[in-house]
Amino acid sequence: NETAKAALGRATWKLLHTMTLRYPEDPSNDERAALNSYFHLLSRLYPCGECATEFQALLKKFPPQTSSRRAASLWLCAVHNTVNHRLHKPEFDCAHLDDEYDCGC
Amino acid sequence: NETAKAALGRATWKLLHTMTLRYPEDPSNDERAALNSYFHLLSRLYPCGECATEFQALLKKFPPQTSSRRAASLWLCAVHNTVNHRLHKPEFDCAHLDDEYDCGC
Ligand SMILES: Cc1cc2nc3c(=O)[nH]c(=O)nc-3n(C[C@H](O)[C@H](O)[C@H](O)COP(=O)(O)OP(=O)(O)OC[C@H]3O[C@@H](n4cnc5c(N)ncnc54)[C@H](O)[C@@H]3O)c2cc1C
Ligand SMILES: Cc1cc2nc3c(=O)[nH]c(=O)nc-3n(C[C@H](O)[C@H](O)[C@H](O)COP(=O)(O)OP(=O)(O)OC[C@H]3O[C@@H](n4cnc5c(N)ncnc54)[C@H](O)[C@@H]3O)c2cc1C
Repeated sequence: NETAKAALGRATWKLLHTMTLRYPEDPSNDERAALNSYFHLLSRLYPCGECATEFQALLKKFPPQTSSRRAASLWLCAVHNTVNHRLHKPEFDCAHLDDEYDCGC
Repeated sequence: NETAKAALGRATWKLLHTMTLRYPEDPSNDERAALNSYFHLLSRLYPCGECATEFQALLKKFPPQTSSRRAASLWLCAVHNTVNHRLHKPEFDCAHLDDEYDCGC
């Protein structure tokens, strides 16, 4: 069911981008470890087997960048673009991240 | 911005429910630890400060149930209902979980 897979993907990217864009500007070591673990656990638990396998390979090749909000959000944007490329979707311009994601917090 | 907060919440619940409904029927200790850590990390990183605080309190009161797919998905359904109650939203009938969430995996 491709529609369900796409809807799950959209929901997940939304959470992930909003999360990195609210991640601290200047994180503690503990916050850095939390973000890194979060992505690794998600890649194990993500409920689409094929996507999870690909995601795990991506994280190995491009480990999460956790040193700042900017580093984390640009890293995730690049990772999402790698997935876009594989799925023949257009590349997203990472300069527009802030306009696209509003968490309403 | 309440609209953005609601959209983020909907996206997150979708990922979480789909995840617990694909969680193993008979998880290993390692898989149990992964799911437990995942929820705790999410409650720290969730990009809505008020929601994150409430979520952390909820996890303390109702620790993640990880012994099986059924236990995890019913636990999450109950937790979501607790949030629904606080926000004056209708209670969801947890018997309908399987019909509602399809991951397309
Ligand atoms: C970790 C992960 C792995 C996945 N692996 C697979 C897979 O292997 N096979 C598969 O079929 N599907 C996979 N998916 C789903 C896939 O990535 C899409 O989510 C799905 O196909 C729906 O695509 P979409 O065109 O609606 O846009 P999505 O890719 O879901 O993006 C949603 C919105 O985010 C914005 N956006 C796009 N690119 C970026 C970017 N680089 N940075 C920030 N914002 C951006 C755009 O506004 C876009 O409309 C995966 C999803 C995730 C979260
Ligand atoms: C962890 C977390 C904490 C949150 N805390 C707050 C907060 O403190 N303040 C705040 O304003 N918002 C909070 N939110 C957002 C809030 O829960 C809703 O997501 C948001 O208000 C949008 O609500 P909705 O009516 O669209 O349905 P949602 O509650 O987002 O639910 C989406 C869909 O899931 C289904 N559903 C409903 N209940 C259940 C259930 N029990 N089990 C399974 N499926 C169900 C229904 O089909 C529903 O339409 C939180 C979200 C999350 C993920």
